Amino acid sequence: MRQFTIQAPNAALKGALQDKIDNLNKPKRSLGRLEDLAMQVGLIQQTLSPSLSHPCHILFGADHGIEREHVSVSPREVTWQQMINFTRGGGGVNMFCRQHGFKFIEVDMGVDYDLSAYPTILNHKIGNGTRNFLYEAAMTEEEMNRCIEVGAGLVKQCRAEGCNVICFGEMGIANTSPSSVWMSLFGHLELHTCVGAGAGLNNNGIWHKVEVLQNSIDRFYSTMRSRSHLPEEIIRWFGGYEMVATIGAMLQAAELHMVILVDGFIMSACMLAASVLYPDVLHYAIFTHSGDEMGHAKLLNLMKADPILKLGLRLGEGTGALCAFPIIDSAVRMMNEMNNFETGQITKYF
Amino acid sequence: MRQFTIQAPNAALKGALQDKIDNLNKPKRSLGRLEDLAMQVGLIQQTLSPSLSHPCHILFGADHGIEREHVSVSPREVTWQQMINFTRGGGGVNMFCRQHGFKFIEVDMGVDYDLSAYPTILNHKIGNGTRNFLYEAAMTEEEMNRCIEVGAGLVKQCRAEGCNVICFGEMGIANTSPSSVWMSLFGHLELHTCVGAGAGLNNNGIWHKVEVLQNSIDRFYSTMRSRSHLPEEIIRWFGGYEMVATIGAMLQAAELHMVILVDGFIMSACMLAASVLYPDVLHYAIFTHSGDEMGHAKLLNLMKADPILKLGLRLGEGTGALCAFPIIDSAVRMMNEMNNFETGQITKYF
Repeated sequence: MRQFTIQAPNAALKGALQDKIDNLNKPKRSLGRLEDLAMQVGLIQQTLSPSLSHPCHILFGADHGIEREHVSVSPREVTWQQMINFTRGGGGVNMFCRQHGFKFIEVDMGVDYDLSAYPTILNHKIGNGTRNFLYEAAMTEEEMNRCIEVGAGLVKQCRAEGCNVICFGEMGIANTSPSSVWMSLFGHLELHTCVGAGAGLNNNGIWHKVEVLQNSIDRFYSTMRSRSHLPEEIIRWFGGYEMVATIGAMLQAAELHMVILVDGFIMSACMLAASVLYPDVLHYAIFTHSGDEMGHAKLLNLMKADPILKLGLRLGEGTGALCAFPIIDSAVRMMNEMNNFETGQITKYF
Repeated sequence: MRQFTIQAPNAALKGALQDKIDNLNKPKRSLGRLEDLAMQVGLIQQTLSPSLSHPCHILFGADHGIEREHVSVSPREVTWQQMINFTRGGGGVNMFCRQHGFKFIEVDMGVDYDLSAYPTILNHKIGNGTRNFLYEAAMTEEEMNRCIEVGAGLVKQCRAEGCNVICFGEMGIANTSPSSVWMSLFGHLELHTCVGAGAGLNNNGIWHKVEVLQNSIDRFYSTMRSRSHLPEEIIRWFGGYEMVATIGAMLQAAELHMVILVDGFIMSACMLAASVLYPDVLHYAIFTHSGDEMGHAKLLNLMKADPILKLGLRLGEGTGALCAFPIIDSAVRMMNEMNNFETGQITKYF
């Protein structure tokens, strides 16, 4: 896999940022979480007057070989149907993009359907879904590298158009399965604590899913030739095309000092994988939504993340990240629009 | 006090609303809290296609006699300074109103300062702050009734201009004190569990505040002639002009079937008082923010409220309600903009 240059933001500005925040006309710390967000965005952008411009939302879609093992309540065809639905503007992701002024970019990374009749879907199809990781690696090394490049390239293009805040979504029936495996292997957690109901499995379904995934993990370790490049091998064996593209996109965004809004379970699993490769990517991540998917709280813990919202969303598509955007916007406005004690002519009372 | 006509929304529409929500193209319940909000707003407005129009934010300001007892870390002058600061657009409330398209209405209910030089502040001054409720009732019955009328009248005017969603904020140094007393007396909770740090008291300060408030409550009961109209007497003895105006505004908004966004501790205390008078007012209330003020969680429990956000805000001014507005907007957009399984041509997979 190609290399990225990802460094933690220079912390030298921290004192000046804190001074500015503390001198706004409000009791100290009284804007709570908004103050933390202002600090983080200020550090990422290395400025006392941060701004959010040209927000973009990239939705990567792909199918998964593991779907053949009945690990999901939804059938595979829902992936392409939803991809087409998004082109018509009627999906959850569309309405929230419109609401918050996000440019919506929809990418076919490997949906098992010919979407070429839909010109707004960018065609980067790697294949008609990954291979079934119960039996073999989901993708080849070359495919993995192409996914990374596609994700990184799209982010570069967004940046070139003025975007400095980006979020990602996914459409890929069965993609909680690779997410749970990544979480278990990267987080050193027992598999069953990482597996949830996805879009609505019952208890039997969940136990079946755990069994399939455990067998897949056993097969992976018995097949693996060497433990060098283990993280990349785990990404490659279990990952979806849309998920690996997301990793490339996240890493590129961090390299370009962009603010990354991280959505729910699947996007958090992608950020975890990205952070195993480059731990400093987390400095650029704002975790936006804590879902009900069993294990999401544990997954967030692995990254010491405390998401902004808890609305019980489990739609995917990046909807949680979009819903959290106005909160981050509020934090940035605070730094630019709020008077300080001097300009506001208020007695400083602390 | 005048009477309002407040009834729970007709529940007959519940089934049709739930059908519409369940048939949107998403796994069932996958938009979590947004679905609850859509249901509530749909019932309030008695429609399957709710809308939010001409949102207004009314900020009531007033001073408190109890401030003389050093129950607040901030000096009284901060009330008028902030009222003036808001006219310049540099307060927290201003930036969030701009961000979310709220009309901002600032009202002097009894600030201890001549604000007549500021034409954007509506002058409804009842007095230069309430009386000190450690010794006597904060206001007369006639003053209480005037506050109710002012609050109700302003809401009526907003409604006449097309507003159907409204939130309220306050500026009044020391107004966590009356809020804590209302919470204790209306909620039958021990006083010390209802008292917090306000804008930043230390432990000694909190104990002093509890002592002052307990003495005030003792005085109230020893002075009171009869227990008839007890809730109104409690409102009158301890309330601030800005808080009683808020009660009138909330009751009027419920009577007019408007959506009421309830901010933090003080606004929750006003809603509690309003709900003691008219329990059905709660059907119109959306609780927006759970603050860190000790006791706020207990106060919310009294009304079985589970606020949308938890951002650690404690600025007041109604800022939490404003920050939550886009979430409610998302819920309403869901009902109008999201395809259902038929229009989206998606296999219904549950």
